[in-house]
Amino acid sequence: MCGIFGIVAAGNYEHLNVLAANGLAALQHRGTESTGLVGSDGITRDHVEIIKGHGLVRDVITEDNISRMNGQSIIIGHNRYSTAGKKKSGINCVQPFVVYTAMGTVAIAHNGELVDAKQKRKEVLHEGVGLSTDTDSELIAQMIAKAIALNVKCKYGQEMGDITRELAVTMSALNMSYSLLVMTFDRLYAIRDPFGNRPLCVGTVYSKNGNPEAFIASSESCAFPANAKLDFEVRPGEIVELSTGGIKSVWQMKPNTPLAMCIFEYVYFARNDSEIEGQQVQTVREECGKTMALEDDLEADIVGNVPDSSLSAAIGYASQSGITYEPVLHRNSYVGRSFIEPNDEMRQNAIKMKFGVLKKKIHGQRIVLVDDSIVRGNTMRTLVKMLRDAGAKEVHLRIASPPVKFPCFMGINIPTTKELIAAEKTIPEICQFVGADSVRYLSVDGLVSSVQKGIERAANFSPGHCTACLTGKYPVAIDL
Amino acid sequence: MCGIFGIVAAGNYEHLNVLAANGLAALQHRGTESTGLVGSDGITRDHVEIIKGHGLVRDVITEDNISRMNGQSIIIGHNRYSTAGKKKSGINCVQPFVVYTAMGTVAIAHNGELVDAKQKRKEVLHEGVGLSTDTDSELIAQMIAKAIALNVKCKYGQEMGDITRELAVTMSALNMSYSLLVMTFDRLYAIRDPFGNRPLCVGTVYSKNGNPEAFIASSESCAFPANAKLDFEVRPGEIVELSTGGIKSVWQMKPNTPLAMCIFEYVYFARNDSEIEGQQVQTVREECGKTMALEDDLEADIVGNVPDSSLSAAIGYASQSGITYEPVLHRNSYVGRSFIEPNDEMRQNAIKMKFGVLKKKIHGQRIVLVDDSIVRGNTMRTLVKMLRDAGAKEVHLRIASPPVKFPCFMGINIPTTKELIAAEKTIPEICQFVGADSVRYLSVDGLVSSVQKGIERAANFSPGHCTACLTGKYPVAIDL
Amino acid sequence: MCGIFGIVAAGNYEHLNVLAANGLAALQHRGTESTGLVGSDGITRDHVEIIKGHGLVRDVITEDNISRMNGQSIIIGHNRYSTAGKKKSGINCVQPFVVYTAMGTVAIAHNGELVDAKQKRKEVLHEGVGLSTDTDSELIAQMIAKAIALNVKCKYGQEMGDITRELAVTMSALNMSYSLLVMTFDRLYAIRDPFGNRPLCVGTVYSKNGNPEAFIASSESCAFPANAKLDFEVRPGEIVELSTGGIKSVWQMKPNTPLAMCIFEYVYFARNDSEIEGQQVQTVREECGKTMALEDDLEADIVGNVPDSSLSAAIGYASQSGITYEPVLHRNSYVGRSFIEPNDEMRQNAIKMKFGVLKKKIHGQRIVLVDDSIVRGNTMRTLVKMLRDAGAKEVHLRIASPPVKFPCFMGINIPTTKELIAAEKTIPEICQFVGADSVRYLSVDGLVSSVQKGIERAANFSPGHCTACLTGKYPVAIDL
Amino acid sequence: MCGIFGIVAAGNYEHLNVLAANGLAALQHRGTESTGLVGSDGITRDHVEIIKGHGLVRDVITEDNISRMNGQSIIIGHNRYSTAGKKKSGINCVQPFVVYTAMGTVAIAHNGELVDAKQKRKEVLHEGVGLSTDTDSELIAQMIAKAIALNVKCKYGQEMGDITRELAVTMSALNMSYSLLVMTFDRLYAIRDPFGNRPLCVGTVYSKNGNPEAFIASSESCAFPANAKLDFEVRPGEIVELSTGGIKSVWQMKPNTPLAMCIFEYVYFARNDSEIEGQQVQTVREECGKTMALEDDLEADIVGNVPDSSLSAAIGYASQSGITYEPVLHRNSYVGRSFIEPNDEMRQNAIKMKFGVLKKKIHGQRIVLVDDSIVRGNTMRTLVKMLRDAGAKEVHLRIASPPVKFPCFMGINIPTTKELIAAEKTIPEICQFVGADSVRYLSVDGLVSSVQKGIERAANFSPGHCTACLTGKYPVAIDL
Repeated sequence: MCGIFGIVAAGNYEHLNVLAANGLAALQHRGTESTGLVGSDGITRDHVEIIKGHGLVRDVITEDNISRMNGQSIIIGHNRYSTAGKKKSGINCVQPFVVYTAMGTVAIAHNGELVDAKQKRKEVLHEGVGLSTDTDSELIAQMIAKAIALNVKCKYGQEMGDITRELAVTMSALNMSYSLLVMTFDRLYAIRDPFGNRPLCVGTVYSKNGNPEAFIASSESCAFPANAKLDFEVRPGEIVELSTGGIKSVWQMKPNTPLAMCIFEYVYFARNDSEIEGQQVQTVREECGKTMALEDDLEADIVGNVPDSSLSAAIGYASQSGITYEPVLHRNSYVGRSFIEPNDEMRQNAIKMKFGVLKKKIHGQRIVLVDDSIVRGNTMRTLVKMLRDAGAKEVHLRIASPPVKFPCFMGINIPTTKELIAAEKTIPEICQFVGADSVRYLSVDGLVSSVQKGIERAANFSPGHCTACLTGKYPVAIDL
Repeated sequence: MCGIFGIVAAGNYEHLNVLAANGLAALQHRGTESTGLVGSDGITRDHVEIIKGHGLVRDVITEDNISRMNGQSIIIGHNRYSTAGKKKSGINCVQPFVVYTAMGTVAIAHNGELVDAKQKRKEVLHEGVGLSTDTDSELIAQMIAKAIALNVKCKYGQEMGDITRELAVTMSALNMSYSLLVMTFDRLYAIRDPFGNRPLCVGTVYSKNGNPEAFIASSESCAFPANAKLDFEVRPGEIVELSTGGIKSVWQMKPNTPLAMCIFEYVYFARNDSEIEGQQVQTVREECGKTMALEDDLEADIVGNVPDSSLSAAIGYASQSGITYEPVLHRNSYVGRSFIEPNDEMRQNAIKMKFGVLKKKIHGQRIVLVDDSIVRGNTMRTLVKMLRDAGAKEVHLRIASPPVKFPCFMGINIPTTKELIAAEKTIPEICQFVGADSVRYLSVDGLVSSVQKGIERAANFSPGHCTACLTGKYPVAIDL
Repeated sequence: MCGIFGIVAAGNYEHLNVLAANGLAALQHRGTESTGLVGSDGITRDHVEIIKGHGLVRDVITEDNISRMNGQSIIIGHNRYSTAGKKKSGINCVQPFVVYTAMGTVAIAHNGELVDAKQKRKEVLHEGVGLSTDTDSELIAQMIAKAIALNVKCKYGQEMGDITRELAVTMSALNMSYSLLVMTFDRLYAIRDPFGNRPLCVGTVYSKNGNPEAFIASSESCAFPANAKLDFEVRPGEIVELSTGGIKSVWQMKPNTPLAMCIFEYVYFARNDSEIEGQQVQTVREECGKTMALEDDLEADIVGNVPDSSLSAAIGYASQSGITYEPVLHRNSYVGRSFIEPNDEMRQNAIKMKFGVLKKKIHGQRIVLVDDSIVRGNTMRTLVKMLRDAGAKEVHLRIASPPVKFPCFMGINIPTTKELIAAEKTIPEICQFVGADSVRYLSVDGLVSSVQKGIERAANFSPGHCTACLTGKYPVAIDL
Repeated sequence: MCGIFGIVAAGNYEHLNVLAANGLAALQHRGTESTGLVGSDGITRDHVEIIKGHGLVRDVITEDNISRMNGQSIIIGHNRYSTAGKKKSGINCVQPFVVYTAMGTVAIAHNGELVDAKQKRKEVLHEGVGLSTDTDSELIAQMIAKAIALNVKCKYGQEMGDITRELAVTMSALNMSYSLLVMTFDRLYAIRDPFGNRPLCVGTVYSKNGNPEAFIASSESCAFPANAKLDFEVRPGEIVELSTGGIKSVWQMKPNTPLAMCIFEYVYFARNDSEIEGQQVQTVREECGKTMALEDDLEADIVGNVPDSSLSAAIGYASQSGITYEPVLHRNSYVGRSFIEPNDEMRQNAIKMKFGVLKKKIHGQRIVLVDDSIVRGNTMRTLVKMLRDAGAKEVHLRIASPPVKFPCFMGINIPTTKELIAAEKTIPEICQFVGADSVRYLSVDGLVSSVQKGIERAANFSPGHCTACLTGKYPVAIDL
């Protein structure tokens, strides 16, 4: 997981920096560990402006430093996901990664994870290239730098920022998964791996008069400003070039068949108001709730949810089942870290700090409690207890996705198998652990059909989704 | 507005500091400008531990500094509301206000606003007392300090921390409005003005074995830990004492009849999961939505809302009207400051940064858009435009409270009349300004009846609510 | 100890804020714990601008915040001394102390310590005034506020900022020691106690054309800008008023005879380039070195010193004794905190971090090592060892002040008697502890005569110095 | 300029981290822009601990983060010089530079500047290596990484951290100037270029019992802890290996004849208490003062200096000329940034903030004012004016080094020629500009002879110094 955003001015548009900052803020849900912006003035081959830091966009990018990006004509940005359990990465791991090459500065923002990173890294080191981080972005950057050097003599004196051929060479040597933004001094490339594993789309910002002001590439369409239109989603295996002159597809390798778009983007990562594969994410989530109700045969009085993310699934479940939706929990949006939690009682208090029960609603009721996933089960156990303490007669847990049982090697940070309750326990054991009256998950088939029924068929390739974390079937062989 | 929270250990309970920090975090919605904690060890008359700072509880109170409160046996805390338009207050205005008096340290946390503060301040200054802030809390503190000095000779050698008489004297000299926590070295007083203008309740934390571990006083019950029970709401004009020995009512002046509890606590300030006057706030809000539907006769396809606060009213409206509830807007929870907004287009982008439209749901639909209030109207105007751009056929605005037209002098920071759209424009003008197909507000009678129908009648005084900001009828004469 | 600085514009002088910041920076040696500036625009009775913070002037006062003081016509500032061993004071203890009174805002900066603070505090509390800090400044502020309230009816409508009478009343109730700056909205008072215990002087800033631009009051003349002239030192017991109209003496109480100016200002606190009692501090220090040489009969090869402060005394000793001065130690000006020092070896390293030995100079030499004081003796012991390790043949310690054996109650923070090597050990014991060949201190008579010989006799009162920390003879009775 | 420090534990010595932090603090005068430490545990080939930051050692290295280096068995550190006029470098330019190579992690700390960096950089980029900074350290790191990759197959399974051969290959491809510390997981290399341009020395830390505890390599000996002994200065062209087993010379290329040790290390950079080429720096500076007096024939009353750095030269001048040394200026050690300086008067005040005049000493005197260099002349002009205003009869400027007229390409940051007063003006013009009665500089011959007379002849190569900035004669051809 990570969020990437790039923007190129059409002509002299002045507020590129604000749009870039807002775009990254809109993609904050894809990564909160660190954020970075890199800008080029479109002319100078060897200089970029850089803003980087750990933390949220609103903390890293300030009124002060954003003004340093005034007058830039291309900006790319990146939000990094906080990989729980690992140590926080050093500041030089904050993307976009900037590298000087034989033809000038190149900046890279990467969403995804190279499944064969370890092998690739070995190759690069044995070619005599020292690496200063352990990131995939630097690996890809060095591969691009090498491709440029091989080709650089014939290029000098020509169209300097065009590295389409070098990028195509690099892609041929890469396995999944990546969605990339690559910036040279005068253009921006949006690239998606041939599996289409991570989303990426391009669009145009229009002035009041209907003229293009800027061109955008973004992980999700939710990051587009109000006056922008989604042009298309970058096709699997495609290189799209954005420059002052507009958006054009400059190369495409053969896409994988079937594709392996990450199905968890729909379940969890993407924002409700984004469009992926032509459909609104919120609609898919509501559909998942409906499918889950169809797979179910429960009698209950109200459908509630664990706020905020599972509201759509709960509403879908309610509308399909005919059971009334009622908010049963309040989420405190200001919660920060939990303090020392020396005992069970204190741990429950920490969860109580995050959620309040709407007691009067649930007294004597049979509740269907919808959530989008269960990770360790501790929070859920406390929530069920809180509902029972407040007088709920029955609490039935309904999870709007199948159990996550397998690790992801393509960019999703899933806790180790030992921590995953679904990998360690059967569903009855889970039910007992959380203290619910019943527990059901959405089936894999139910999830896939909920996702695929709404996909627009305009694209000339067969849809397909990666369900490896649910089924253990990986789109490529994984060499551990 | 402000949030106050106090806690006293029964015996040797160790985690008072964590409960206090969590309690303040749960009251964060009542004030985000600054936060403070003051603790007493229950023995030392002239020393308190203090943690204070500007910003959210999660930023001010850290693992490090909270440990300084280990072993305290009484702690009170305060969240200060950010009074827009005024300059940020200095650090010495951060409450609780601590004052050394002739009988030891006294700390005060105040929610409310003295309607006659200007006059009171003059009196104190002319008695020869220098004031170091312009806060009501310091005024009240100096009045208490004086009452203590007058009485101190007879008190020495007796029960030192008991200042009931001094507090009663002070209350007699005060007008509305205040809910107060006052801490001496060995006890905590919870006090509410005779109008009952601001909420305040007390409760008990129980161990697993059912023994009392601590006693709590809080603006709202949502700040109680999981293992606490609400004992009662402090009665108008009452002084309740909390000490190691438990909770007891020690004095009560004659309450005002009818009372003047701020009705906006229900509309806007209080948390959904709090109980006020015996009823759940969320239920009242849903009721408001229902009443609004009863007062309405609109034909539409879906009911949506401006997230997050107006969900309850929207669900009430939907259930009463029979029109389906559908989420139509997504709220970005990570939004920070807006950057420079040099023109209208950029201002719209700033609002777009906060809200995304769920386009696929609303295309061709007639939408009832529910919100709990309109302040300036700018955000609403952009939201309506975003919905129309996304294909909405009609957009009808329904506001789940009456128009706010008058200033509040009792603690609610309402923008100046000039900025308030409801004070400056008629409803048809508002409708035109925001670009809606129709605009309706809940009626004052509708609000009052929605609020009063569920109030538990256990308390031996007639209910009554302050509606001054809606009607201009103030509970006391205001001397401007 | 503390440093105070005040400045009033003559006419429309614009750079008062910069002069005030520079003035405080020049007085940094008098206090490094915290710093504060308070400014008045000369017109508004109830508003002041405030900048306060913990740390050095260069950290607290920034390009950003100093600009908030643009256009102020009076500014006073204060540097607070870091009182080792005590906990760091809260931010509301940072001076100048600001208090609203019946006639408007009054700000106070205090250098000194009230010997009867405990009693005064009790009086104020029993008059019913709550205190928010445990500082002398707040005590004095409340006494002034009371004096103003008593007098305020007859004053309204008159010359509003004139509080000469109120200050005189307050002084009559105060014991030593204080040098004060008191600011009302339109004037600045510089006040010195009748013992003249702490220094204070006034001067004028001139434009290129020789016209007055501003009037200054400062603890020391070293804080005057380049284009300022020292007018006079405030006389013991005097109130001097600085306003747009100039500098004038407005009241004087009978000064104490003899005076009790703190002799340690000469030994240690004041800056070399300041003038006190008409003489340059550096000259006095050189004189002390000479006197010490006269009292001595040592044979040695070189005179060295512990940098930086004792250079003057060493040069005086060298010139009187005829022994050549040679630098023997280098001081690392960048040293910060010492890290964990688990053992003796590491502690020596921490001192080595601060001082380097100039080895080649001292090999085989008999060294007179001059310093201005010894506190605990640990550093000196390491330095002597370092000199010996580098080949010094003999190391003779000469301290340019008498042994400090008694506590100061007038503002000097002296370590507790137990930590003071001179209070606990005889001189031979000290010599053995530090490992020197001999140790001698300047005699009390030697110090007094070195100080008094250069005092200008213009002032019409007999000179006199407080030597309590050396002799145990306090100028006033001390009630512990 | 820059400072480098490395340390290797002999056995299980525990306090390596504290010694490293102290060592860097002692080298702070060589660079204040940023600081960094990198540590290896001696076992893990692919992991290092890193502490880096902008600012002083005391700000970057804290009690908290230094503890992360507990248990490291090798640590290297670097202080970076603040290159005035250039923008502050990004955090990824903070050294030591860490690079992953085919044989594990390598960390590099570099003092010096590659005269042919531009050409070397081009070569590396065209070999297809992307660079992430514009530092020489990264260039050298990539050259080492390449040398390692070429050799790595035969090395696997052998003594893993030994890269002597690879370093020798790298040195053969490098021109001047560099002193390097290179750390592999289990050893530390100290390397000096064949010109001996920058200093570098090695030493041993002994326990109380006389056993080696650690081995050190440092830019200067002043950074050695109290219980360390200087073993030898690394010879020009030499690679010295430090490991658990001790210090040994492992390779030496033919040193340049004559050598080109930077003469400005003596004049300005090195610390007084360091030993370079066997002599104490302070002694050389005193010698320069004496030589300057020999070249002079001035009649005057007192010799003063601009504190702090020129004290040694002033004392040398005084002792040779027989004129008495007297402090004439006081330096304020707390000065921070200067605030806005809108006019000449304010600029003078900013300088006055840094220096106070000891007036009483200089009234009516003819003063020889000694400083070690003049850069722009503005400060000196103000100081001369301040001395005259205080009554000095004559002010004669004596500069203890020759005029700096030429740029340095070997690591010294000299202001551009336009700013250098000595490059733009004749000595009479300088005299007029600063307003002195006379100005003289030490001659180049005088400087060289002062430096060379004390060099110990133990080393088997002819001494020689780079005087390029004074004479324009560069030790190697410079290709601009």
